[in-house]
Amino acid sequence: MPHVQITWVEGRTPEQKRKIAERVTTALIEDGQAKRENVHVSFHDVPSTNYAEGGVLVVDQKRTP
Amino acid sequence: MPHVQITWVEGRTPEQKRKIAERVTTALIEDGQAKRENVHVSFHDVPSTNYAEGGVLVVDQKRTP
Amino acid sequence: MPHVQITWVEGRTPEQKRKIAERVTTALIEDGQAKRENVHVSFHDVPSTNYAEGGVLVVDQKRTP
Amino acid sequence: MPHVQITWVEGRTPEQKRKIAERVTTALIEDGQAKRENVHVSFHDVPSTNYAEGGVLVVDQKRTP
Amino acid sequence: MPHVQITWVEGRTPEQKRKIAERVTTALIEDGQAKRENVHVSFHDVPSTNYAEGGVLVVDQKRTP
Amino acid sequence: MPHVQITWVEGRTPEQKRKIAERVTTALIEDGQAKRENVHVSFHDVPSTNYAEGGVLVVDQKRTP
Repeated sequence: MPHVQITWVEGRTPEQKRKIAERVTTALIEDGQAKRENVHVSFHDVPSTNYAEGGVLVVDQKRTP
Repeated sequence: MPHVQITWVEGRTPEQKRKIAERVTTALIEDGQAKRENVHVSFHDVPSTNYAEGGVLVVDQKRTP
Repeated sequence: MPHVQITWVEGRTPEQKRKIAERVTTALIEDGQAKRENVHVSFHDVPSTNYAEGGVLVVDQKRTP
Repeated sequence: MPHVQITWVEGRTPEQKRKIAERVTTALIEDGQAKRENVHVSFHDVPSTNYAEGGVLVVDQKRTP
Repeated sequence: MPHVQITWVEGRTPEQKRKIAERVTTALIEDGQAKRENVHVSFHDVPSTNYAEGGVLVVDQKRTP
Repeated sequence: MPHVQITWVEGRTPEQKRKIAERVTTALIEDGQAKRENVHVSFHDVPSTNYAEGGVLVVDQKRTP
């Protein structure tokens, strides 16, 4: 532990995920006393039809996701 | 908050998700004191090989998912 | 299926959860072709130190959760 | 209940999922007093770019996932 | 990976969780090609007011949870 | 979005969660194009009887969690 589940709209590159996984892991080690080898991070990419904020799907919002 | 994660077998249309996201959000506002802009809903579609009820995958069940 | 996981700051009453579970379930039946007996809803109550929006814990926000 | 969410890197076959769903369900019945019809299991397959251990994506690890 | 999240109504003993964690882990190793040290299992205990099946909270059901 | 769910063994202080929430949020903004106000982070604290690694509960491991 810990396990980190990140759910967001698809579109991020492997390089973006690589950086975020490392930064999140480091934050948990430095500020949460986690051991590096026990930190797991999973990214759950969903289409823009599958995430809503304020009741409105991202695909219907007038902004970039 | 709140965050709502809905996991189900794929096959629902964007229009179905649109209606459900709105109804779930409204329920949380009216009965759960949530603020609209803070309600997030994510739909996690999985194939029918990836959901089991009673130990039986949906793809193996003799019913419509 | 579906399974619905609702994560929010603790403080809602059983009566509020009762109403929300029923409304969410009905929405999934009417708009998502779910069968009533297969809809599961779980509420994950976390303390106000355990939910952050915009990087700020709810306990530190100048608003009611 | 219970609901079991299994998140892993994609690549397992339906037959592997079939066996695991049955074994997990049986374990929850025999050792957790669950009723068979109430046990739900969902498999969340993610690409090898979407799971990190120790801050390193599985796609970047020098091992089979 | 994999990460396994089990959500259920509270009441199971540590001994029950110990057995289930071992059985689930073994199933993922034998049938899912997982490496033992990478399998994580978390149990999310919720009160009987916090889990609904068919729109009815477990606390309101006429059965033992 | 994104929504970040962090599951770990209880014991971290609010100050530790405060720092981690901020660092995770910043990582998602800088490397994941997220908008600050849309980033939600929830911490799911579980007892040491409720998390297993390699099939062994943390409470049974010969190390500090």
